[in-house]
Amino acid sequence: MFEFRITHKDGRARCGVLKTVHGTVETPVFMPVGTQGTVKAMTPALLKDIGVRMILGNTYHLYLRPGLEVIKKGGGLHRFISWEGPILTDSGGYQVFSLSVERFRGMKSRVEVTDEGVRFMDHLRGDLHFFTPKNVIEMQLTMGSDIIMPLDHCIPYPSDERLSREALERTLLWLDQSVEAMRDHNDGCVLFGIVQGAFDEALRIEAVERTLERDLPGYAIGGLSVGEPRELMMDFTDLVASLLPQEKPRYLMGVGKPEDIIYAVGRGVDMFDCVVPTRSGRTGTLYTSRGVLNIRHSRFRLDFGPPDPECDCYTCRNFSRAYLRHLFVSEEITSYVLNTIHNLRFYVRLMERVRSSIKEGKFYEFAKVEMEKLRRKV
Amino acid sequence: MFEFRITHKDGRARCGVLKTVHGTVETPVFMPVGTQGTVKAMTPALLKDIGVRMILGNTYHLYLRPGLEVIKKGGGLHRFISWEGPILTDSGGYQVFSLSVERFRGMKSRVEVTDEGVRFMDHLRGDLHFFTPKNVIEMQLTMGSDIIMPLDHCIPYPSDERLSREALERTLLWLDQSVEAMRDHNDGCVLFGIVQGAFDEALRIEAVERTLERDLPGYAIGGLSVGEPRELMMDFTDLVASLLPQEKPRYLMGVGKPEDIIYAVGRGVDMFDCVVPTRSGRTGTLYTSRGVLNIRHSRFRLDFGPPDPECDCYTCRNFSRAYLRHLFVSEEITSYVLNTIHNLRFYVRLMERVRSSIKEGKFYEFAKVEMEKLRRKV
Repeated sequence: MFEFRITHKDGRARCGVLKTVHGTVETPVFMPVGTQGTVKAMTPALLKDIGVRMILGNTYHLYLRPGLEVIKKGGGLHRFISWEGPILTDSGGYQVFSLSVERFRGMKSRVEVTDEGVRFMDHLRGDLHFFTPKNVIEMQLTMGSDIIMPLDHCIPYPSDERLSREALERTLLWLDQSVEAMRDHNDGCVLFGIVQGAFDEALRIEAVERTLERDLPGYAIGGLSVGEPRELMMDFTDLVASLLPQEKPRYLMGVGKPEDIIYAVGRGVDMFDCVVPTRSGRTGTLYTSRGVLNIRHSRFRLDFGPPDPECDCYTCRNFSRAYLRHLFVSEEITSYVLNTIHNLRFYVRLMERVRSSIKEGKFYEFAKVEMEKLRRKV
Repeated sequence: MFEFRITHKDGRARCGVLKTVHGTVETPVFMPVGTQGTVKAMTPALLKDIGVRMILGNTYHLYLRPGLEVIKKGGGLHRFISWEGPILTDSGGYQVFSLSVERFRGMKSRVEVTDEGVRFMDHLRGDLHFFTPKNVIEMQLTMGSDIIMPLDHCIPYPSDERLSREALERTLLWLDQSVEAMRDHNDGCVLFGIVQGAFDEALRIEAVERTLERDLPGYAIGGLSVGEPRELMMDFTDLVASLLPQEKPRYLMGVGKPEDIIYAVGRGVDMFDCVVPTRSGRTGTLYTSRGVLNIRHSRFRLDFGPPDPECDCYTCRNFSRAYLRHLFVSEEITSYVLNTIHNLRFYVRLMERVRSSIKEGKFYEFAKVEMEKLRRKV
């Protein structure tokens, strides 16, 4: 079962309901990243308390560790990690792209992309692997993911026209093979399409048109957050979102900071994932209603107020900035737990407030005020 | 307010009730260690769920970080760390002893003990500090600890008779200064005495007699776990516990493993603290009803049973050994959280079962069976 229904609109911004066999979530939704089978520093019970309803898993990481055999024998990803809600898994395309831009053991590249797939050396032990459109679908089917992403060819910014065209054609070729690999799987999971096309308007328009020909249950905006200036990321989100069909969910992969999410919701995007709230929590950066603060700072040494006076999370209800600073400076694991709880709750509440403002027809006013706040430093 | 009342006896083992201004706990009790203002990888809410009622704080660590000023201005230790239950704080004597046995920057010793107190270089930055019997009491009063420990002179095993005698005399001298420093503090906290006397029967007997002359509300068995063979630790626990007054709580400092606790309860000890359950959790060692297991082991790769089928903790109810192994191997923070939850719950349940068996007059049978189980490896 997979359904998406739009319930409210305010300009291009929309509220919707996404139904999967593992439950229903309201959109716009933010999915915390559970790279290796857990959202870092969290437990499923903590995530539930925070209000998280849907998470993302990384096929690349889970394939390497614990490996598909373990997940399969463990009853699938939901059961293995004890997460009852919906899970979207990526295809590994972006992770492999990340590998390609770093040097490794003096080799020119640890990644080789052909029409058949991607051959790469992993980041853990340097072992060789081969990802194909077919086998990444099979991996995600094995995991029992609710939303499956096809292998796509992600390229860095800037890339020339030849490579941009090549990545576009290959992504479409792979999409057809992915659709084929999904055939006969009617057990509730769905495949989204990914729109590539680099930072070239004509290519993006063509990519959207040709991806839509495959008539998939949802579409992702791919190939962003690859090193481009923020304005370009916003412009191309705007362009692609404007061309996607109203009735299908739109997913902006790997984005982002609160201000990026607010911007993209205003352009009609429904789904987001990003490591920002969790990673920031572990580096001491807290998102608050008064702006961003770094809890390490010595000016919080004797600040006994909560991290965010407007926040209702466990951390803000029970601990002071002074205490959180102490835990962070002392490198306590509890610091990462409490900071992550706060940041994820901030994101969950942000999405709640985004949805409320759309329902009330006040999203763009809300967005303006929030953008202003987010620019501040505490 | 401080009260201790024995409710049940079985041979030398006893059950009791310890009342403090921050609540009542049943004894025998195990106190998890909250070295730097948190039990590592835990939150107060998690500890409460696990059934932890009382914790220990380390004066040495809290004095260094965040410092007494921060704790004082933060409303005392309970409020600063958001822990509502009783807290026992140690005096720093043992931490300074630990510093003394390691080499530091080529110096012969980073610790100098005189009758006035202990001068030492800290482990963080090598700064010089001076702890006196008076100032460590003041620190603990500032923190608002429920049970305060006096500065004692801890010595390594083996130590010669001269040093053993010196440490005994100095500990008693310091105890009188501690009692003096506590005068006029009737706000509910109490001072325990610490029995030294190294591993010399005559000295231990003398130490008990002279410590008891101070008529304190509780007594600790000190100077153990300093490098001696386990049998010696047990023999001297036995000896000292047999000489302490029935009506006062007895606290075996820094002990220990489950089998050490069971042994000591059988000799009449009421209170324990140790880093074992928390530290083991972070190194992947899990205590179970079937014996000890190291979750890193590859034989758990496809073991989808719970860590301990008899355990009711969050970890055992929701996750498999295979999943916990994966998290541990992947160095996920969640691994340390889930392992610590399990080990602390194991300790809490162990103490519950210890108390039940005493109440039923079956402690020594219980102890025999448990000791057997604890020797096993899973």
